[in-house]
Amino acid sequence: MTHDDPATPFGGIHDAPCYAVIFASQRRAADAAGYAEAAARMLELAARQEGYLGVESARGDDGFGITVSYWRSLEDIARWRAHAEHRAVRETGNALWYEHYELRVVQVLRAYAKAAAAAPDA
Amino acid sequence: MTHDDPATPFGGIHDAPCYAVIFASQRRAADAAGYAEAAARMLELAARQEGYLGVESARGDDGFGITVSYWRSLEDIARWRAHAEHRAVRETGNALWYEHYELRVVQVLRAYAKAAAAAPDA
Repeated sequence: MTHDDPATPFGGIHDAPCYAVIFASQRRAADAAGYAEAAARMLELAARQEGYLGVESARGDDGFGITVSYWRSLEDIARWRAHAEHRAVRETGNALWYEHYELRVVQVLRAYAKAAAAAPDA
Repeated sequence: MTHDDPATPFGGIHDAPCYAVIFASQRRAADAAGYAEAAARMLELAARQEGYLGVESARGDDGFGITVSYWRSLEDIARWRAHAEHRAVRETGNALWYEHYELRVVQVLRAYAKAAAAAPDA
């Protein structure tokens, strides 16, 4: 369950050290197509950055969404934040797409997943 | 912007120390009413626990959701985890509501919100 597995929407369980960015945002209705295109592009671009571990994202019909991206180090997060295309997209987000957002940089202390149901032959 | 302000879906920006639980889950279609009732009850109950700072939650039409709850200390998180009613609900979630979930306990290192637009008289 890593970013190499596009079949899962989960960020994955990773060995330490692991850091994450929690991005909570309230979307405006404006420019839905432009937003969707930029969001897809950012996911694709982030996945190619050094230290990227995975991402998970959910948004409800009310336009409130949470995206969590997972990274090996704080330096990886800083490098992604400084990426020129990412910076440009953030400026558009500030001006156009997001009514409000809150962002946290966090260190993952513990992580676990639901245990798989025992297979019949297990 | 705290849990005292029900008008906002955001978890809020809090002074250090601040910890969080990131709960990502894939819902099953089963028992939508029972799930909704339990989810609302857990939000209400969590908000009354010592050390609770706020919560934010989003779920898309595909049933994939993320809930982040914010707490003052790891001890507060452990106490909430051990709460009898919370434990019972988690067991139902394991058996019935969640196809899969991933959970992380994290420490918030930095947090910031979108800057408010300048008021005309600012």
